[in-house]
Amino acid sequence: MAKSMSLLLGSGCPPCWRVRITLEEKLQGYRRKMLSLQAGEHKSPEVLEINPRGQLPAFKHGDNVLNESMAACLYLENRYPSKGTRLIPQTAVEQALAYQRMFEGITLNDKLNALVYYEWFVPEEERCDNESPLKRRTEVLVAELQLWEKYLQKVEPGSYLAGSFSLADVTVFPSIAYAFRFGLSVERYPKLARYYSLLKGRASIKASWPPYWMESPRGYGVLRDL
Amino acid sequence: MAKSMSLLLGSGCPPCWRVRITLEEKLQGYRRKMLSLQAGEHKSPEVLEINPRGQLPAFKHGDNVLNESMAACLYLENRYPSKGTRLIPQTAVEQALAYQRMFEGITLNDKLNALVYYEWFVPEEERCDNESPLKRRTEVLVAELQLWEKYLQKVEPGSYLAGSFSLADVTVFPSIAYAFRFGLSVERYPKLARYYSLLKGRASIKASWPPYWMESPRGYGVLRDL
Repeated sequence: MAKSMSLLLGSGCPPCWRVRITLEEKLQGYRRKMLSLQAGEHKSPEVLEINPRGQLPAFKHGDNVLNESMAACLYLENRYPSKGTRLIPQTAVEQALAYQRMFEGITLNDKLNALVYYEWFVPEEERCDNESPLKRRTEVLVAELQLWEKYLQKVEPGSYLAGSFSLADVTVFPSIAYAFRFGLSVERYPKLARYYSLLKGRASIKASWPPYWMESPRGYGVLRDL
Repeated sequence: MAKSMSLLLGSGCPPCWRVRITLEEKLQGYRRKMLSLQAGEHKSPEVLEINPRGQLPAFKHGDNVLNESMAACLYLENRYPSKGTRLIPQTAVEQALAYQRMFEGITLNDKLNALVYYEWFVPEEERCDNESPLKRRTEVLVAELQLWEKYLQKVEPGSYLAGSFSLADVTVFPSIAYAFRFGLSVERYPKLARYYSLLKGRASIKASWPPYWMESPRGYGVLRDL
């Protein structure tokens, strides 16, 4: 079945990474191809044919198209619950927590993007002359990261966001990895750092680590002072 | 079981409405309380105790907290698949489409909010003197609405986003209703209008229609010229 699956992804794109981790946890033998976001390959006919939004990931299983990362993850889990790792917990308590953290993970990623890619998302003619947008985006992101630090305080060491490893971790980990790559302080966010350390050695995450992050292990330090 | 469920919601808040529709489709007898977003009641201790983000919806099932609207919907469907309407289709084709449209529905709602609530989301000191932000947000929303118009062209009359009524409709309908309330043209978006007409008479949607929309059936015409 994995042979009929193909994934187009961009290196270091957190939503793409979510689908990659889910596939690694559950199936082997799917096809994948890394495209360059920098070179604008997400706007190529190859992508547009699958994803009219011209975004990555672009995922197909036979004729079924799932371009929204979490849609792809939920679909894979729902179709193949007992293949590889079960990614939606079975108890009501863990299940509620997994769903809740998954969707909060979208917010975390949005807030990271809003600061790190401010100049990408806001065209020059809309940027005002004062410091307010960057200052506000920084405050919003700090409050968000502190919320996750608090959530992780309640998690036992060695445990995951919703008990066992789940789609909550699949969703959230790429954003956390990305924050540390962009300079987030291990000292000021110790619980996030502990969580990062726990996850980064997991087989599915090692296998899917963004290739260009290996070549240049550190990103620029835009989050260094947070 | 519904007796141990309570929902705090704001009138006309599309994410809140999603949870309301899901509950109406599946269960009876849950507790709910409408709060005023205008009066800032989403920042009250009553909400903050459940949702540290100070946002609505805030939903509890026993001790399980689900404040992200789609997390609550997925949880309810997953815990009670055979209660009331089944909201995740069972065939792979419909399931893929339902998940895909659900998550695209978040994007649709974000783009609506970005235009309709521009002044709410962007503080005065960050608004530039030119027309660019409103113009760009309008273009982005028009492109988004045209994409949905195209999706709905492929849907048979009388059919839903993913075949049978599903969480895709639960997610997307409140945003469509909201767009028409804010003046979207029935003539220029005929497939969206047909979809709106089909859904608005559904029992779960009628039962959960925002109360203040009944008092004042039309919103202001901010989307009239789109």
